[in-house]
Amino acid sequence: MSDRLPAVLDFLETHREAALLGLKDFLRFPSVSADPVCGGHMSACAEWLARQLQAAGLSTEVADTDGHPIVLAFNQHRAGRPTVLLYGHYDVQPPDPVNAWTTRPFEPDVRKTPAGTDAIYARGAADDKGQIWAHVQAMTAWEAAGGGLPINVIVLLEGEEEVDSHHLPDFVNANRARLKADVAVISDTNCFARGVPAIVTGLRGLVYGQVTLRAAANDLHSGIHGGAVRNPAIALAKLLAALVDESGRVTLDGFYDGVHSPADDQRKAWASLSFDESNYAESLGLAQGAATLAGEAGFSTLERRWVRPTCDICGVTAGYQGPGAKTIIPAYASAKVSFRLVAGQDPLKVRAAFEDFVRGHCPPGLSVNVDHFAAAPAVQTSQDSPWMKAAINALHLGFGARPVMIHEGLTIPVVHLLKRSLGLDSLLIGFGLPDDAPHAPNEKFDLGSLWGGTRSAANLYEFIAASHD
Amino acid sequence: MSDRLPAVLDFLETHREAALLGLKDFLRFPSVSADPVCGGHMSACAEWLARQLQAAGLSTEVADTDGHPIVLAFNQHRAGRPTVLLYGHYDVQPPDPVNAWTTRPFEPDVRKTPAGTDAIYARGAADDKGQIWAHVQAMTAWEAAGGGLPINVIVLLEGEEEVDSHHLPDFVNANRARLKADVAVISDTNCFARGVPAIVTGLRGLVYGQVTLRAAANDLHSGIHGGAVRNPAIALAKLLAALVDESGRVTLDGFYDGVHSPADDQRKAWASLSFDESNYAESLGLAQGAATLAGEAGFSTLERRWVRPTCDICGVTAGYQGPGAKTIIPAYASAKVSFRLVAGQDPLKVRAAFEDFVRGHCPPGLSVNVDHFAAAPAVQTSQDSPWMKAAINALHLGFGARPVMIHEGLTIPVVHLLKRSLGLDSLLIGFGLPDDAPHAPNEKFDLGSLWGGTRSAANLYEFIAASHD
Repeated sequence: MSDRLPAVLDFLETHREAALLGLKDFLRFPSVSADPVCGGHMSACAEWLARQLQAAGLSTEVADTDGHPIVLAFNQHRAGRPTVLLYGHYDVQPPDPVNAWTTRPFEPDVRKTPAGTDAIYARGAADDKGQIWAHVQAMTAWEAAGGGLPINVIVLLEGEEEVDSHHLPDFVNANRARLKADVAVISDTNCFARGVPAIVTGLRGLVYGQVTLRAAANDLHSGIHGGAVRNPAIALAKLLAALVDESGRVTLDGFYDGVHSPADDQRKAWASLSFDESNYAESLGLAQGAATLAGEAGFSTLERRWVRPTCDICGVTAGYQGPGAKTIIPAYASAKVSFRLVAGQDPLKVRAAFEDFVRGHCPPGLSVNVDHFAAAPAVQTSQDSPWMKAAINALHLGFGARPVMIHEGLTIPVVHLLKRSLGLDSLLIGFGLPDDAPHAPNEKFDLGSLWGGTRSAANLYEFIAASHD
Repeated sequence: MSDRLPAVLDFLETHREAALLGLKDFLRFPSVSADPVCGGHMSACAEWLARQLQAAGLSTEVADTDGHPIVLAFNQHRAGRPTVLLYGHYDVQPPDPVNAWTTRPFEPDVRKTPAGTDAIYARGAADDKGQIWAHVQAMTAWEAAGGGLPINVIVLLEGEEEVDSHHLPDFVNANRARLKADVAVISDTNCFARGVPAIVTGLRGLVYGQVTLRAAANDLHSGIHGGAVRNPAIALAKLLAALVDESGRVTLDGFYDGVHSPADDQRKAWASLSFDESNYAESLGLAQGAATLAGEAGFSTLERRWVRPTCDICGVTAGYQGPGAKTIIPAYASAKVSFRLVAGQDPLKVRAAFEDFVRGHCPPGLSVNVDHFAAAPAVQTSQDSPWMKAAINALHLGFGARPVMIHEGLTIPVVHLLKRSLGLDSLLIGFGLPDDAPHAPNEKFDLGSLWGGTRSAANLYEFIAASHD
């Protein structure tokens, strides 16, 4: 083990104020990739990030794409050392609804959380700027300690993660040689709980589509024509109602083909995790607490979130949605529908089954349209690689507690991309907390997550280097 | 019969140019009652209208309300003559979407219709300015012919019909003595077809409510939580799907109590009307023509529109509705639902049944809210009053064709108000056409409707006077 690690950790300890100021600067960029008016902020944020990485001793470039730029950075690579590709994203979700925020989404504010801890509140605090920042600080500390990083690092930070990483696959494929590495590290997930770090060894896949049923060119007066013209909102309700049965199972043809129940030892390990449904429900602000938890019969809440496929309606729009009454038959009705997939499911087969379902459930007289937005398979990573052991130790020392091995229900398409395009396994070590509210108002990142994550990242570089010795 | 009627009709014939110029002036006022920036235009339009009525020999006032002003006008009343309350509205719908108009909505344009007739295009042309204007012209002609109107007239023109006539009930109740009349005349409906004038003898009632199901305080990430938290949009879809059964019947408890099928002679009379479903479907821009026509089994399209109760979803909102994908479980899902009622149905019972239905169909774990926006009963008018005979003859001579007796599916709350508050039956004689596109872009009023309506109004005053002799 390098004798520099204590100095690195010491540097981190004594430079927290500067680290926090830097994170605030990072969070002030309204780098909303989905918003066309934010183009200038995206470039500015990428350039700023590149300068931070230069200060940490890396050589950097801001690579143009047909969308938002990608920040690339390399330290001085040396033969015989392992190479880590560190992926993250500097773009953030739109801050809407803005008036639900306690402080402005792009004016970071440090204050107490409801749990009594200190946190920094801003859009992107947890997803993913705070987590990137932990790595940038760790790299800065290794540089400050003299001699630079103990491993070869490739930093790849994109600006389109929140808009489907539209231009990343082409970029990665076009830069295969430069991006050649031994393992990928991604910090864009959560600890299992406050004080319980976690490594994610499985992610669900995603199929996402939008169905639109149209009855007329324009909305029609529901008094004059009501009862005589097929109402597309009623037809859509019947279609959507049929997607999930009373036991919470998805009714698409062949949806469960290839899906297995979790193994007994896995179920046991997860059942032993300290997970309180009431606390979970409370943290989500559920309308009726744990009574609002519901899903496929026969599985626990964690199993439903992590290893069971599911269907959600993510949005519905039809007709008049303002205050009061407007008496119309909507011209059309539309719904956005997502399917989370698990190991064994083929996204393209699910997509086709959804389209068949929609066409089979559209009543006569309506025109139907189906748009497809995503199709990614589930991912599972090996639990006994040397990298995994390094990650376990890094988090253990970083957070002072042994990490648990969990799944996550969400989809991180880049994990699949890095495997497919570069042959890389990903270490999913994230520092967020379940109550961080990414994608929602009042997103935050606990300072405990920031400092624990920074230490863990510094450790990780060391332990990956050591695993290779 | 007055020997002045020929002179009145002659005056109308020879003063068409002035009448059209006046209507253009009327249509140039952007009297959009729903738009707060139009307040000045509302007052200006009301004052202008009062001046036109003064020129027709009436004494007028513009009465303030807590909303937009009401124009009141009276001719010199004489004992022993019948008194007619003429109701109309000078406010109009918003012109949105403005860029769908061929010419600007408040710059009236006279041009050919797709049917080859001449028409004046502007917001409010048919609904209701053109129809009011026919009466103003008829009154002007009676004044010009010397001796004034042969009946007592009370003109009541409100400026809030398109925004639920918010302040009209209080005004009417506070002015009962001054508004005492024998019958009301309302010209705010349509001919059955071009060349086929109509008298509406029945209107459907309305119950309108909004149901909101809430799962969480904010939208949740559907990857992290999907499958474990009840999705309110799925629950709403199941609730709405259950509102109408496969035969198109509404499933609320007791919904059809008191509802009778139309009488055989009425069904026969309506079946004999020249009504082409393909033309109707085409005029509405239906996605798949007549195949998009659907409704309660066992009834014709006209019966479904006129005398069968029905349920429509007028709007649905949940979660993300922008372009592309956003993976959330919506915090809440909400739908606006209208029920059109027919004779025999009690709006308050239907409202209560809807609320019971919603609460009975809300799954555990969601909070439910129901807002109510309207509750008006169906209206039917007597077909053999002396007023009705006068109206039939007036339209017959005005349009050169005997009017048909029809129903309309929509609700005109003022009809119920005038009955409830003043004990008045309403004669619903409208001059519009089914292709006038009220509430939509390119609203128009055929010049044939204007001249036929003007003649009919002039005749009506005479025949009502004669019926009383």
